[in-house]
Amino acid sequence: MEYSNSSNTEQPQTCLEITMEVHRVVPPPHQSTIHKLKTTLKETFFPDDPLRQFKGQPTGKKWILAAQYIFPILQWGPHYSLSLFKSDIVAGLTIASLAIPQGISYAKLANLPPIVGLSCLFHTGLDSSFVPPLVYAVLGSSRDLAVGPVSIASLILGSMLRQEVSPVSDPVLFLQLAFTTTFFAGLFQASLGFLRLGFIVDFLSKATLIGFMAGAAIIVSLQQLKSLLGITHFTTKMGLVPVLSSVFHNTKEWSWQTILMGFCFLVFLLVARHVSMKRPKLFWVSAGAPLVSVILSTLLVFAFKAQHHGISIIGILQEGLNPPSWNMLQFRGSHLGLSIKTGIVTGIISLTEGIAVGRTFAALKNYKVDGNKEMMAIGLMNMVGSSTSCYITTGAFSRSAVNHNAGAKSAVSNIVMSITVMVTLLFLMPLFQYTPNVVLGAIIVSAVVGLIDIPAACQIWKIDKFDFIVMLCAFFGVIFISVQDGLAMAVGMSIFKILQQITRPKTVMLGNIPGTDIFRDLHHYKESMKIPGFLILSIEAPINFANSTYLNERILRWIEEYEAEDHKKQSNLQFVVLVMSAVSTIDTSGVSIFKELKKTVEKKGAELVLVNPLGEVMEKLQKSDEAGDFMRPDCLFLTVGEAVATLTATIKSQVSNHVV
Amino acid sequence: MEYSNSSNTEQPQTCLEITMEVHRVVPPPHQSTIHKLKTTLKETFFPDDPLRQFKGQPTGKKWILAAQYIFPILQWGPHYSLSLFKSDIVAGLTIASLAIPQGISYAKLANLPPIVGLSCLFHTGLDSSFVPPLVYAVLGSSRDLAVGPVSIASLILGSMLRQEVSPVSDPVLFLQLAFTTTFFAGLFQASLGFLRLGFIVDFLSKATLIGFMAGAAIIVSLQQLKSLLGITHFTTKMGLVPVLSSVFHNTKEWSWQTILMGFCFLVFLLVARHVSMKRPKLFWVSAGAPLVSVILSTLLVFAFKAQHHGISIIGILQEGLNPPSWNMLQFRGSHLGLSIKTGIVTGIISLTEGIAVGRTFAALKNYKVDGNKEMMAIGLMNMVGSSTSCYITTGAFSRSAVNHNAGAKSAVSNIVMSITVMVTLLFLMPLFQYTPNVVLGAIIVSAVVGLIDIPAACQIWKIDKFDFIVMLCAFFGVIFISVQDGLAMAVGMSIFKILQQITRPKTVMLGNIPGTDIFRDLHHYKESMKIPGFLILSIEAPINFANSTYLNERILRWIEEYEAEDHKKQSNLQFVVLVMSAVSTIDTSGVSIFKELKKTVEKKGAELVLVNPLGEVMEKLQKSDEAGDFMRPDCLFLTVGEAVATLTATIKSQVSNHVV
Repeated sequence: MEYSNSSNTEQPQTCLEITMEVHRVVPPPHQSTIHKLKTTLKETFFPDDPLRQFKGQPTGKKWILAAQYIFPILQWGPHYSLSLFKSDIVAGLTIASLAIPQGISYAKLANLPPIVGLSCLFHTGLDSSFVPPLVYAVLGSSRDLAVGPVSIASLILGSMLRQEVSPVSDPVLFLQLAFTTTFFAGLFQASLGFLRLGFIVDFLSKATLIGFMAGAAIIVSLQQLKSLLGITHFTTKMGLVPVLSSVFHNTKEWSWQTILMGFCFLVFLLVARHVSMKRPKLFWVSAGAPLVSVILSTLLVFAFKAQHHGISIIGILQEGLNPPSWNMLQFRGSHLGLSIKTGIVTGIISLTEGIAVGRTFAALKNYKVDGNKEMMAIGLMNMVGSSTSCYITTGAFSRSAVNHNAGAKSAVSNIVMSITVMVTLLFLMPLFQYTPNVVLGAIIVSAVVGLIDIPAACQIWKIDKFDFIVMLCAFFGVIFISVQDGLAMAVGMSIFKILQQITRPKTVMLGNIPGTDIFRDLHHYKESMKIPGFLILSIEAPINFANSTYLNERILRWIEEYEAEDHKKQSNLQFVVLVMSAVSTIDTSGVSIFKELKKTVEKKGAELVLVNPLGEVMEKLQKSDEAGDFMRPDCLFLTVGEAVATLTATIKSQVSNHVV
Repeated sequence: MEYSNSSNTEQPQTCLEITMEVHRVVPPPHQSTIHKLKTTLKETFFPDDPLRQFKGQPTGKKWILAAQYIFPILQWGPHYSLSLFKSDIVAGLTIASLAIPQGISYAKLANLPPIVGLSCLFHTGLDSSFVPPLVYAVLGSSRDLAVGPVSIASLILGSMLRQEVSPVSDPVLFLQLAFTTTFFAGLFQASLGFLRLGFIVDFLSKATLIGFMAGAAIIVSLQQLKSLLGITHFTTKMGLVPVLSSVFHNTKEWSWQTILMGFCFLVFLLVARHVSMKRPKLFWVSAGAPLVSVILSTLLVFAFKAQHHGISIIGILQEGLNPPSWNMLQFRGSHLGLSIKTGIVTGIISLTEGIAVGRTFAALKNYKVDGNKEMMAIGLMNMVGSSTSCYITTGAFSRSAVNHNAGAKSAVSNIVMSITVMVTLLFLMPLFQYTPNVVLGAIIVSAVVGLIDIPAACQIWKIDKFDFIVMLCAFFGVIFISVQDGLAMAVGMSIFKILQQITRPKTVMLGNIPGTDIFRDLHHYKESMKIPGFLILSIEAPINFANSTYLNERILRWIEEYEAEDHKKQSNLQFVVLVMSAVSTIDTSGVSIFKELKKTVEKKGAELVLVNPLGEVMEKLQKSDEAGDFMRPDCLFLTVGEAVATLTATIKSQVSNHVV
């Protein structure tokens, strides 16, 4: 097909030929409002269609499926075998060896310190590695997730609560608030899952998370300077500036013994991490390194009585299982607001980490994790945890990776880990008495260093500059302002970007690729050519109240620009063709601009032609258009090619009739 | 072209034929980041390209254009002629006859009552009809806009200020706050215009405005029951419930004389309005009716001494021009927050009305109104007004319609109106002494009744049910809760809807329309057919962090559904074709799902094929894709038709090679 005006012979025949090719745009099949509403609600809240498996099953089977849906353990439990158990036992012991030192370290991070006289002591960290995995093993749908306390959530919990309560001067209240926060975090997480609002975590974009993680890693590492340098008078603030000034104003407190020991173990841990990263089969090197460090450093301290030579140690720890803590939950009083706020922030953050980790490993092993169900599992786990002396837990990336590499086959590895931790709590606690704090600091630093993902940052810079700015915003916000403000800023900017894209949708002028009936962006496809007399615009976004005014004005500007250019070429604008293939939805404000546009275009002596309006748009245009102006077959085409061919033929036949 | 597998002969030839037709997808021309940023900023803040006219002009001409840009009066002033002036004088006198009674009535609505001893007295309403039009005449770009106080903004101003300050017990403070609010409203409006943030008013969708206007009209009318029934002890609240209970608890105060008079004049005004609506040429009937009512009722009261028979009158009014009021602006004190809040709400509302009115008449006469410039003009007008005893003003719909119908040619009609009002202020004020309040009430009711647009509401119900809900929300929110909360609820719901659409974009399965190479929605075009072995999905929205997870899962569900169906048919899924024509933008989270999808699809033994990625998407995919997986010519096509044809041919040739 050729659209130039040059070949001016044989009009009637061409016209006939083309008319035969034209396909009618039909209105979409009718759907009732209820049906549409149902579809929208289903896609919003049940995008994974969880009830699909129930369809067409007998009632008994349905009950079994429902029970399996709620307790995934019923799904894999019956098929569980000895060989699977062997794999799980290895994986469980491996993650326990990682969980014990990490549990102690992260509790430190959350400012839940070893305070003598308190019945829970240091437990909270280890407890969090003990009860929640049992709950998750029953409810969770991921086979690889190793749950337990994680660095970021521990950090946020500690820093947010410390704004109002000091963990040193009021340790009981601090612990109460930590448990209350954990309860609210769990409640929030479970509610999100139950109300099918899981998509809220999607608002933390990849760029936000990378920036946030890196910032948090630096904040966490800076906090460890206290143990790594052996400083006793350290700031309680989290920001970069107060921490560094605290470090350099207390140079007299630096202890060379501590620094030496910290440096050696940090190097050991980082090398172990590096080895495991290069060779995934050597996963046990990095998995065992923290426990080896703890044992080695404890023996060293014990042998050389280093606690008398400037190396601070954990001190006396009480044995025994975690006591019930439901009597410590505080649902009234002046700190309730703080608990709820901290609960929501830590809840969202730990949910994001848990779900991201679950999805990553599910994708690796080609099974599926139901986001909303995971939320409920993680939420219930935290609610149970909050009444058994546990603080907030979730699926931890490093531990899940070790679990996966160690060959875990099911959540049983979590149970094995729980039992190992329980045994430790019951019998081995006094052994940790001489563990130096500096080693715990080194363990934390080596764990969070992996959160700084520089290649991903470079990739973001390469792909999307705005995302990079969002990332920087999260990063510097966390470092210089606060963890929660940095996060809020980054999320705000991401949403602003989306709103900007909505209020200013793209419109693109199309041209014909010669020798075809394909029409593409004139600017992108340099070989494409304008058709004389036609202005072909593609609207590349849904139309709604926020952009209808802009679109109206922008299209008028296109027309004016076309006319200004036209003036030189002496060819008149005859058709404004709007390609609607990308307009997936429209609202009443959007519908009304077409009427206005039609009027304006007709005043200029041209005609407005719509091409390929999609189902919903078509329907709404039809309803708003009582006169049938838009539905006239000479204003509505299925493809640009057909529109141009038909309309060109019409002009030609008009011209020839005129001549005749 | 036929895509069925039935015709299995002559493969090599077909293959050759088809290969010749395939068009390469090329990367878009390179643009630097700075250039892209510039384009985005320009489209966001300067969508109307205001500097276009300056291009290629000599420096002198540029200065003139700039001056004309700032003061549009310089544009039309030099061409102003006597014949134009004649038209403007008629229009000006007509709107003055409407402005005087409306000015007095609206000041009542804003609780700026005739308080003896205050130097401004009743002026504020009339003053607002006098100074601001002069400012607008110099700065404004609309030729038809008649500015002055409007009912909605008056109502909001009065009701919001009354929450903290009583206009009866503390009239001076109330007046000070009214002027301060006007100042902040003007400042806010001018800043929005200056910062090119005019698109903020676009967030008030048509549905929101219709619901809001109707609700406000009812609230305003209910308030008039006080004057219409002659009640003296009336509630100070705005809601439907307190007003009605106040009306029916004070039935003893109802005065039959007032009710009779009110009823007669209300019927007269409504009939006049109806006549003018049916025949636009009789515009003067409704334009003159309020003044006629005021004169007639004043004469009646004066003749029958009706003020002694239960009809309340305005009372003694002081003559003279409006005194400067800049000394009454309060920039400190406990009510500053209230002033700013009220200023922002009334500022946005009056801006929306002013700009909507300006745009409506500009579209009628085919000229253009620059939204951001209008905002600056309206804002400056209010800032000047606040220091000359005027409260908030904007372009009023009813008055502008009368202005337009009366044949106004330029902003001179505003000046004529101003002078008329000034003369009234100077010499005719005592004449209004006997004007009964009931007539002012009737004028307000007859004016706001037109704001209830039932046909538009029906239209919205027909086109978009969700918009209808938003409208109801605004309507009932305004009636039962408060003006500003009703508005906020409706705006919140509108934005929620957009975010819902973003997080849950549509994906549609396409089929081939037989006998063509057109592919359309299988559900919409019933004649379209699936191609065996192909799953063709069209993604109908930009991809970003908020929807990438959903899209990934949704596409996997499509694949699973296809496979489940396939199982019955015994034909394998070989290609997943993603049509990207509607994906106008993408971010880093969006880019990463394609890699995941590719992996998953390949695990299922199929291949992922992209069709027509647009410029930006193409570029980002290319950058993220170091291995060149997506850019391979057998995975990337310009049209679905070409993709299907080429890939079918490849399979056939493979099969035939295999057989050979």
